[in-house]
Amino acid sequence: MLVHGADGTVTIEPAEVSDPQVSVLDLGVTRGDGVFESIGVVDGRAQAVEPHLARLARSAAMLDLPPLDLAAWRSAVAQSIELAGPAAPFTELLVKLVYTRGIEDGDAPTGWVLCSDPGSYEPARSEGIAVITLDRGYRADVAQTSPWLLQGAKTLSYAVNKAVLREAARRGASDVIFVSSDGVVLEGPTSTVIALIDGVYVTTPDEFGVLPGTTQHAFFELVEQTGGSTAYRAMTVDELREATAVWLVSSGRQIAAVTSLDGDPLPHDPAFTADALTALLAR
Amino acid sequence: MLVHGADGTVTIEPAEVSDPQVSVLDLGVTRGDGVFESIGVVDGRAQAVEPHLARLARSAAMLDLPPLDLAAWRSAVAQSIELAGPAAPFTELLVKLVYTRGIEDGDAPTGWVLCSDPGSYEPARSEGIAVITLDRGYRADVAQTSPWLLQGAKTLSYAVNKAVLREAARRGASDVIFVSSDGVVLEGPTSTVIALIDGVYVTTPDEFGVLPGTTQHAFFELVEQTGGSTAYRAMTVDELREATAVWLVSSGRQIAAVTSLDGDPLPHDPAFTADALTALLAR
Repeated sequence: MLVHGADGTVTIEPAEVSDPQVSVLDLGVTRGDGVFESIGVVDGRAQAVEPHLARLARSAAMLDLPPLDLAAWRSAVAQSIELAGPAAPFTELLVKLVYTRGIEDGDAPTGWVLCSDPGSYEPARSEGIAVITLDRGYRADVAQTSPWLLQGAKTLSYAVNKAVLREAARRGASDVIFVSSDGVVLEGPTSTVIALIDGVYVTTPDEFGVLPGTTQHAFFELVEQTGGSTAYRAMTVDELREATAVWLVSSGRQIAAVTSLDGDPLPHDPAFTADALTALLAR
Repeated sequence: MLVHGADGTVTIEPAEVSDPQVSVLDLGVTRGDGVFESIGVVDGRAQAVEPHLARLARSAAMLDLPPLDLAAWRSAVAQSIELAGPAAPFTELLVKLVYTRGIEDGDAPTGWVLCSDPGSYEPARSEGIAVITLDRGYRADVAQTSPWLLQGAKTLSYAVNKAVLREAARRGASDVIFVSSDGVVLEGPTSTVIALIDGVYVTTPDEFGVLPGTTQHAFFELVEQTGGSTAYRAMTVDELREATAVWLVSSGRQIAAVTSLDGDPLPHDPAFTADALTALLAR
């Protein structure tokens, strides 16, 4: 738990996860008014900490939250992993960072860092996932025209991101790709879309109101290091249907091949995905 | 505080608002994954309790939350007001009901009821409010086409509803009227729009993804009791600009005249608004 003082100071205090820690007056819970990040930890090593902290700061700025004391958050991440104890080989943890506007009419934000066991990401990693496309309702340019809609900020207001997963389950799928009301492929509710199209690994640019993906960024670096081509550009659902392969990438699950889209099978290359997973975990 | 057991039982336990009550694992705070209501209390009398409970149940159903034990919630509302002590004349309180999906991977939802002093609603009630219109980004038919976007549910994912108020403040206003991407007047971030157009009191129908307004409903009843005309139909922003009067109505503030829209003055009738406020408070 980070404790933000009214004077802008931040202290780090360990806290019991089994004890209640959040006030019923905290805008984080009464209004989903805050931001978060999830950082993958492999063999005790936190991945892409600086990109995650930068994204937390970016989300906070989009919500006009007070600037973050990044040194305190960085230290809290390290301390939370240390408290979790020495990591066995291949152990994976997830560190969650939450930063809210604090108590309504109060004078300081609320923040905490929580390190937990995320459970198994199998069989999604090895077998892939069935995915449906769902309308996000917004035009692709809404992040430009209407910044108050907070598209591209990782906020605590994720009720829709949970609702679409229930809709996916009703349709026999386990994940979702959001599509803009004018037909641009956006992102998953907690992941970034990457498609291999005509030999190029393609993802959606930030300007369409998607979250800049830390794992997508690492994946693109890996591809580029081995001479592959990458591109940021708008894609249509038809392009996904005809792609050589499609993946959803994220900080916890890392990478999962999309093996069917809206009920239609997609081609996939289990050996490539397994190699990519190994490389992503080895970061 | 309501305590929901894994077996579906609900018990009511008083709790200290100054103590933390919510787990950092609660989906209400980690994902804004829950619903709420705010009930006005005047002279110790809770207003429109049954419509608020019905709307809480409706929101919960839209989020696939477990059905509510309405008798327990009704009792908790009454107990929270009783705990607040005897009401002085004209005292106003606000009772907030919150119902979340509970601890992630847990077996019971979380619920609480909180009675608090809302502070003064002056000068908004007597002098009116400056309002701006802002794009909600969604088409007017999105509640029909894309129910997973939860339009019309009163969820805890209200970061956008807070962001638009900050945008209003930046533009020198104090409240907002959302407009659909195709030009239909929707609602305020925490209120319902009513406009007097050609002698008819008009509000936006639920089918456009707005929250059915309990105070708007009471206002329409008052109008109809005195022989006035009411209508539920889509309005454009131009119609608001040319209206005889425009109000935002809600459970706490009850009624506030919109005295300017996007910087342009709107006509208003302070005597009528004052009478309407008196009648709404006397419910």
